[in-house]
Amino acid sequence: MSKPAIGFCGLGAMGFGMATHLVKQGYEVTGFDVWQPSLDKFKAAGGIPSTSLFESAKDKTFYIVMVATAQQAQTAIFGDGTGKDEGILKGLPQGVTLLLCSTVPSEYAKSVEKELKDVGRDDVFFIDAPVSGGAIRAADGTLSIMAGASSAAIDKGKWLLDELSAPTKLFVVAGGVGAGSNMKMVHQVLAAIQILSVSEAFGFAAKLGLEGTEVREKVIKSEAWSWMFENRSVRTLTEDYFPGASAVTIIVKDTGIITSMARLLNFPSYLVSAAEQVYFAAVDKGYGANDDAGIVRLWTSEPVNSVKSTLSPEEKETKLDFVVSLLTGIHLVAAVESIAFAKHVGLPLPQLYELAVEAAGGSTQFKGFGTKLISILENGTGEEEVRDHLGRLKAAVNEAQTLKCPLYLGGAALNLLVSANASLEGLLKLYTVR
Amino acid sequence: MSKPAIGFCGLGAMGFGMATHLVKQGYEVTGFDVWQPSLDKFKAAGGIPSTSLFESAKDKTFYIVMVATAQQAQTAIFGDGTGKDEGILKGLPQGVTLLLCSTVPSEYAKSVEKELKDVGRDDVFFIDAPVSGGAIRAADGTLSIMAGASSAAIDKGKWLLDELSAPTKLFVVAGGVGAGSNMKMVHQVLAAIQILSVSEAFGFAAKLGLEGTEVREKVIKSEAWSWMFENRSVRTLTEDYFPGASAVTIIVKDTGIITSMARLLNFPSYLVSAAEQVYFAAVDKGYGANDDAGIVRLWTSEPVNSVKSTLSPEEKETKLDFVVSLLTGIHLVAAVESIAFAKHVGLPLPQLYELAVEAAGGSTQFKGFGTKLISILENGTGEEEVRDHLGRLKAAVNEAQTLKCPLYLGGAALNLLVSANASLEGLLKLYTVR
Repeated sequence: MSKPAIGFCGLGAMGFGMATHLVKQGYEVTGFDVWQPSLDKFKAAGGIPSTSLFESAKDKTFYIVMVATAQQAQTAIFGDGTGKDEGILKGLPQGVTLLLCSTVPSEYAKSVEKELKDVGRDDVFFIDAPVSGGAIRAADGTLSIMAGASSAAIDKGKWLLDELSAPTKLFVVAGGVGAGSNMKMVHQVLAAIQILSVSEAFGFAAKLGLEGTEVREKVIKSEAWSWMFENRSVRTLTEDYFPGASAVTIIVKDTGIITSMARLLNFPSYLVSAAEQVYFAAVDKGYGANDDAGIVRLWTSEPVNSVKSTLSPEEKETKLDFVVSLLTGIHLVAAVESIAFAKHVGLPLPQLYELAVEAAGGSTQFKGFGTKLISILENGTGEEEVRDHLGRLKAAVNEAQTLKCPLYLGGAALNLLVSANASLEGLLKLYTVR
Repeated sequence: MSKPAIGFCGLGAMGFGMATHLVKQGYEVTGFDVWQPSLDKFKAAGGIPSTSLFESAKDKTFYIVMVATAQQAQTAIFGDGTGKDEGILKGLPQGVTLLLCSTVPSEYAKSVEKELKDVGRDDVFFIDAPVSGGAIRAADGTLSIMAGASSAAIDKGKWLLDELSAPTKLFVVAGGVGAGSNMKMVHQVLAAIQILSVSEAFGFAAKLGLEGTEVREKVIKSEAWSWMFENRSVRTLTEDYFPGASAVTIIVKDTGIITSMARLLNFPSYLVSAAEQVYFAAVDKGYGANDDAGIVRLWTSEPVNSVKSTLSPEEKETKLDFVVSLLTGIHLVAAVESIAFAKHVGLPLPQLYELAVEAAGGSTQFKGFGTKLISILENGTGEEEVRDHLGRLKAAVNEAQTLKCPLYLGGAALNLLVSANASLEGLLKLYTVR
């Protein structure tokens, strides 16, 4: 077939990359944004800029919405109700394929499907298709995508999802519209916890008198590795927070989706909730628009890379070990929280594993324990003691106490490990409502 | 008998009150302190000041140690090991009765008993006797006292414990030395949580646009009442933090005793741990020497009583209700955490109830649910659903999320209630190691 024209709404960091990638692949892409500089940049990159949602949608048989929030998506799709801005739906032709790639509550994605029907537009092939991978992979067309929709809609949109994702990273999630967003949500459980764990670890390390570069080197070679740590620590060490690459407000939004849904569905999101309070404190400090790696400033007003260590090699090893133990313990419990939530909302667990292990939520702990946790939940086998994790996390929390260093996640993870008596099954049971 | 001379070490806020109360009762009290102004004040109040531990102890058949920490107690009793300061033990005559009234880990109290034996001084009648009630009750001789010792030591020291405590507030805790400190520790679980809950509630209220005086009025008449709230909120409303009456460092010390012991004994101290991290953040902000009511400044830099409400009466009622719901939920889980810890360390639960319900740890929730919780633990009966607590706490946490207001305790308490499916028995099970 000849390459169809594509409409696109939302030329932010992610959307701009996705839209220009499609331009490079030879598609005619009409892009809408409210921010004129983005439209100018998009034009310079070969796109067709548009200042009207309606015009951006007219006669497009494929349309992608990649705005920041559910509220923005609602206005973009259905208009703002004032008649001033009509939204794209009025412009979209019959039989259009519509991708919503924003991270939104699954309830919202389902409400779009319902509202389309209610307004007589069940001709629209709607795909709930949140993405993960960051701006670079967006621009490369190598995102991870979690897509939920009717099989008819998936059939229609698959080629476009393929264009945007890496070969093995398009995950069609069973369950229809909402399933993609649910999968993204449980993936973000890992992200929400592990983003804060970077700052908590560097804050602790600074109070231990460790040099930032040594901490980074040690952690990324250890069982405390996470994608977030490796990614964010580059910015921690250079104080590249202004604005950096991923604003605190973004993870605050995702965290809010998780904890709201957890409240709605009666799931105890212990660590994400603990993280959320600290994110609010960071926003209150005025860090909202800064990179999330900058949350370390809640622990230390001095740059992390200004610490000059005076420790002996043995002391240094002991203290680096505390940091590794802290992250290892947090990441293990994060794996449990994410997988237990996936189970709670009825998602296919092996697919979550496959997806997250190589995405932004990935960690050595998730990789090592994910299949065991899934096996316990699915087959009742795979029980394992993690007594070493417990003992080491205890030692780290103990040390932090002598330094009066807050470990919001470390403290919470430790109590869960204690209560579970260092058993994987015990941890999962803490997430199983009585 | 004629009134014996008493030795006293530690003329701080509590110790000064206790020692001068004994002076007023007609005892000859020799008081030691390292702070000369306290000695001067003590002399003016009719006491005998002493700048030597040894001298303060010489020929005293009764001696009271009321210093701030276990470390200070160790130096006071056994000397600092340098020979420069010999400590009281060398001065104390055979058969002396020694009261340690400081809040210390029970392990420390036990170590004193052992060390006395090891150095050949098992003639000392040693009583582990921490107190509660604040400086005013110390000076009135109406403290609550939790005493653990051999029955021989209790026989010897009971008259002195009676002098210091209110008629019904001397609690001799079965179990010997260490039992008094353990009882104090589980009482402080309530204190540690409920002190922070005052600031969390006022911080939330300020963000809700509520006036501080209205919040106070509402809360103390509601099921959200706690002794701490009624006591601390007076200082919150007047910003009486400098130094106020109870420094952050004091509750930090007590919290540390709780969480250290919880780690040692594998007890999951969920809420106290969450509180501890916030206390560390407060110390980091420089609030350590200020009154603990001033921790509200982590939420709002404006004085709480500067909020001028523009809410309609209905809005105000709804929002006041959120604050009441927050505190009610936290205090319920605090009651569970305290009673479960008491069970874990083997303390007599009815005695804890009797003690705490009228002490600084008291709350309407503890009073209402304490006996039911004890009945579940002791008889397996008394199960009750607290679904209303769950629903209301959810609504409060939900509202806080829209305001991006951190609820460290509220968020943690909610997850426990969710996991327990709003059952008292379920809550207790979360504190029972698998």
